[in-house]
Amino acid sequence: MGLTLTEKILSRASGRKVSPGDVIEANVDLVAFHDLTGYHVIEVIEKVGMKIHRVDNLVIAFDHLVPPPDVRSAEIQKSIREFVKLHKISNFHDGGYGILHQVLIEKYVLPGQFVIAADSHTTTSGALGAFAQGMGASDIAAAVLTGKTWLVVPQPFKIVLDGRLREWVTGKDVALEILRVFKADYFNGMSIEVFVKNGTDFPMDYRATVANMGIEMNADTLMFVPDEETKRFIESERGYTPNIIQPDNDAEYVDEYTVELDKVELLVAAPHSVDNVKSVSEVEGIDVDYVFIGSCTNGRLSDLEIAAKIMKGKKVKTRCIVIPASWKIFVKAMELGYIQTLVEAGCIVTYGTCGPCIGGHFGVTAPGETVVATINRNFIGRMGSPQAKIYLSGPSVAAATAVLGKIAEPGDVI
Amino acid sequence: MGLTLTEKILSRASGRKVSPGDVIEANVDLVAFHDLTGYHVIEVIEKVGMKIHRVDNLVIAFDHLVPPPDVRSAEIQKSIREFVKLHKISNFHDGGYGILHQVLIEKYVLPGQFVIAADSHTTTSGALGAFAQGMGASDIAAAVLTGKTWLVVPQPFKIVLDGRLREWVTGKDVALEILRVFKADYFNGMSIEVFVKNGTDFPMDYRATVANMGIEMNADTLMFVPDEETKRFIESERGYTPNIIQPDNDAEYVDEYTVELDKVELLVAAPHSVDNVKSVSEVEGIDVDYVFIGSCTNGRLSDLEIAAKIMKGKKVKTRCIVIPASWKIFVKAMELGYIQTLVEAGCIVTYGTCGPCIGGHFGVTAPGETVVATINRNFIGRMGSPQAKIYLSGPSVAAATAVLGKIAEPGDVI
Repeated sequence: MGLTLTEKILSRASGRKVSPGDVIEANVDLVAFHDLTGYHVIEVIEKVGMKIHRVDNLVIAFDHLVPPPDVRSAEIQKSIREFVKLHKISNFHDGGYGILHQVLIEKYVLPGQFVIAADSHTTTSGALGAFAQGMGASDIAAAVLTGKTWLVVPQPFKIVLDGRLREWVTGKDVALEILRVFKADYFNGMSIEVFVKNGTDFPMDYRATVANMGIEMNADTLMFVPDEETKRFIESERGYTPNIIQPDNDAEYVDEYTVELDKVELLVAAPHSVDNVKSVSEVEGIDVDYVFIGSCTNGRLSDLEIAAKIMKGKKVKTRCIVIPASWKIFVKAMELGYIQTLVEAGCIVTYGTCGPCIGGHFGVTAPGETVVATINRNFIGRMGSPQAKIYLSGPSVAAATAVLGKIAEPGDVI
Repeated sequence: MGLTLTEKILSRASGRKVSPGDVIEANVDLVAFHDLTGYHVIEVIEKVGMKIHRVDNLVIAFDHLVPPPDVRSAEIQKSIREFVKLHKISNFHDGGYGILHQVLIEKYVLPGQFVIAADSHTTTSGALGAFAQGMGASDIAAAVLTGKTWLVVPQPFKIVLDGRLREWVTGKDVALEILRVFKADYFNGMSIEVFVKNGTDFPMDYRATVANMGIEMNADTLMFVPDEETKRFIESERGYTPNIIQPDNDAEYVDEYTVELDKVELLVAAPHSVDNVKSVSEVEGIDVDYVFIGSCTNGRLSDLEIAAKIMKGKKVKTRCIVIPASWKIFVKAMELGYIQTLVEAGCIVTYGTCGPCIGGHFGVTAPGETVVATINRNFIGRMGSPQAKIYLSGPSVAAATAVLGKIAEPGDVI
């Protein structure tokens, strides 16, 4: 019997053939943390007092508290910078370089790697076919010190993406479609392996969005089976061709589901849960105060391209904040004129910060406000006030909503 | 005997010939507030329960809490938006349009007006030859309700700017030179009237910086005598030619001082006071953690132009945040490629917010950090931690410092 991608990666990482349900110890290929969790990771490391296992597979990027919104945040970053200097950590990216998950896929992660980081949305790196899982700060500290971690091998579940998405429908709608069908806790204890029938129809930006939302499906990880698109992305970002790893043809999955892409509608997750999924037509016309386009979920070039297409020559009616997920994306989006279009439409822009996604700063919600955001969670209080209502959407619905001041489809404004 | 600009403006505003020392009641031409002080202004207005005197001479712009860094800030803005709607206030600018003082000079203030606003740096509008004074929230509330305020007519002091500034020396250095010579409390009870010998040698951006720092000199106001440059600026910003008002040739001043512009050096105000002025050569080489270019003092197009010239093709060694003072400036700076250059150098950008200037968010300092900032105050704790050290400078020193990681002159990097 052949092996799934999950089994192949975790067998290599643990040095023995593993099966779902096994409790294993595995070598990590990359371990990462950001400023918000990093503080706790370092606290544990310093208490334990051991040496760092390998500096070259440790990645740190500041994103949650960028630029620092208060003295405590500035202090936390300062102490992490001192840690970086002390341990001569070269894979360190200070504020403004990019959101950790974006930095990982732009620069570090390879297909088939076992990656852990101190943030739940670590699953994002599954876009490249890595087994990537978020863990708590103490687990990450242990992995920094030993190079290993333990985990239960999840049950692999196969999702096939077949066909082509309709215009304006993107990776976010596919993630929401999976949440609509399966709800938020179905994939508990599973790893999702996504097979794209025709790779070019589902580009890396969309994969990153779906993988990012893997944790919202409660999966341990969500991986796209590496293919030509994976190679193209790494070649274009890093200038070299990666080896790719794929599951065997006869690999066995606990179950399988096919998403027919041409049938996926423009969707939103209505307040207050990620699986309260509705088609946009069901919520169209609801007044919106504020739109946020950005985050590790939807702050990529294609998101900005879509928003710019929709906002071109128009003015936003809501407040609108746009935050490309990394410096590189911002620079590219300026070269292509997207930033200019978005600013001319009245959007406030910056880059490389989680910004208001976690309600920390740069666009926190007030009580009673209704928000459309391209982020990954709409739990009560996520973006600030517990009395705010958050609708999650892809970039096209968010942009159209900003232009009309109420929940809208791109067709309503173009 | 002729009249000073101070006497002319306040005589017209009060309807009688006034002299220094008179306690007068005067009609205000423009009254303004922002989000941070606006909350208190509105509180007083609502307590009093009177009608707003004139909606058309009331200007509100959000800048201090933009975008909101916490729920309380978001709530404050929300309540001001409701006030704006209730009273049908058309001169309202939500977050991202611009810092209030910049909005006032771009769009509203005219030479010879009497302008008050609930912010100490209201003196900025003196760049256009308006008598502009910051007042407390209750005074501003009273003026919103009655159209009037009271004040003591200040003693007029004449400053002449003669000659031409050397390369890289700007308005900020002139403001610091005045503070170096007179110290921070000399001008208590005075209004400063600045005569530029050759107007084109001291453009509006520089005037706005000097006027902005008028309050740091403890002057009631600091006005540039309107001239061709004043006309040029208003024509270019608003498309019409303003009437200008000038003091009489034989007007009498309590004293007079000439700044020989060609002798002004690149200056900084060292911690922790605005008049602890040193030439850059005295502090060159001091390690710097963080540079901020922006604020109502130095967030204008010429500031960005200078920073971009210095950073072109280089990478910053400190963290560096750049915030154009308004949407209009950001758009123009993108058209001219300045934003691109600054972002390529590694600066984090956004626009239209006070940002870290008041230590509220978007780049707050940590204890022990050394900062070079183009802002107007370096008091203990101004940008966050009371254990941070802030050097105030103009844009050229700030940019050179960011590139070298220590206090530097442009000549050190170009």
